[in-house]
Amino acid sequence: MITVQVPEVVVLRLPLYVRALTQLADDGIEVVSSQQLGRRLQMTPAQIRKDLSYFGRFGKQGRGYKVEFLMRELGQILGLDRRWNTCLVGVGRLGRAIINYPGFAPEGFNILAALDSDLTQINTPVGDHLIVQPMGNLGAEIRRHEIVIAIVAVPAAQTQTVIDELVKSDIKGILNYAPVAPQVPMNVVLRNIDPVLSLQSMTYYLRDMLEGES
Amino acid sequence: MITVQVPEVVVLRLPLYVRALTQLADDGIEVVSSQQLGRRLQMTPAQIRKDLSYFGRFGKQGRGYKVEFLMRELGQILGLDRRWNTCLVGVGRLGRAIINYPGFAPEGFNILAALDSDLTQINTPVGDHLIVQPMGNLGAEIRRHEIVIAIVAVPAAQTQTVIDELVKSDIKGILNYAPVAPQVPMNVVLRNIDPVLSLQSMTYYLRDMLEGES
Repeated sequence: MITVQVPEVVVLRLPLYVRALTQLADDGIEVVSSQQLGRRLQMTPAQIRKDLSYFGRFGKQGRGYKVEFLMRELGQILGLDRRWNTCLVGVGRLGRAIINYPGFAPEGFNILAALDSDLTQINTPVGDHLIVQPMGNLGAEIRRHEIVIAIVAVPAAQTQTVIDELVKSDIKGILNYAPVAPQVPMNVVLRNIDPVLSLQSMTYYLRDMLEGES
Repeated sequence: MITVQVPEVVVLRLPLYVRALTQLADDGIEVVSSQQLGRRLQMTPAQIRKDLSYFGRFGKQGRGYKVEFLMRELGQILGLDRRWNTCLVGVGRLGRAIINYPGFAPEGFNILAALDSDLTQINTPVGDHLIVQPMGNLGAEIRRHEIVIAIVAVPAAQTQTVIDELVKSDIKGILNYAPVAPQVPMNVVLRNIDPVLSLQSMTYYLRDMLEGES
């Protein structure tokens, strides 16, 4: 089998496909054309067909895609058909919001450990059923719960140090909330919440609005 | 002139183009082909030509794009050629990290006011030159500094209330850090830091890694 490298931008779009398809399935729609899917996702039908073509042949020309089937297949490709054990590092205000965020568990992301270096936090309860643990327990917790992903919500100045510790403890994926760009080795997947990118794609619309006013 | 609706996914990619072009310009590269740009951005040349075609004709077939020119043009389209006055609502740990983040000002995003509802925070200094103000000053600060964008870093439970206040105060763009999905009217641009989308595009790579190990 020939493995084609899927461009990262395509991977970044896949969760949006799964969301749109889930919505369609919830609405009782069984078949969707690339035109209809394109309207939901603000993409051209050609782009949709091109993106999906990386992963196989999901539809027949002129017949549309089977919603449930495509949703399941893409979910499997993304690894959404399994549970991902995660830990949270940093249980300040943001960390506590993250642990109480109702969006993670239904999507298969379970936060099974919470850690902090702040001694006043350790042994306090957080979320529904966790106790904050000292950073010294990191490796043991990762092994015990087979944790693959860490969510990092520590102050900016501590972020690289914490991420280095996570890498040493064999974490595979890191979601970093601090507005900094830490370094990780090639075999670790890092996603930064990138506020500048978000702002820069926002001003495209704001510029039009402000010009419309003047 | 015919105005074409640019798909949102294209707009979301434009800042990545500007970043790649800035890097190329810094490296002293004057002309870039869609192939070269594609390698930097992990996109196909065809996709790049298609994206750029929404905004005019930037290159000649076989001649490549002029780096400086394309960078400036895209920057202008995105509104990156002007300064955007912003305020920060919520000066907890995350808010303070945001205000100290060195990435905003060079990109034209100036945080000119910081507000919080916590009485113990009010009148304390934050960042290099701001004083935390009470939420009652919101409208006045927005008018005084001609603030267009608000960055919201308040606890999840307060986010919708704060965003409603911002909308009433005529804010045009909101960058929300809380892991919730607030509602805004059609004429306000909202960008949520969406942790589930980030995680879901990460597991695509993690799944491969874990399978590679077993």
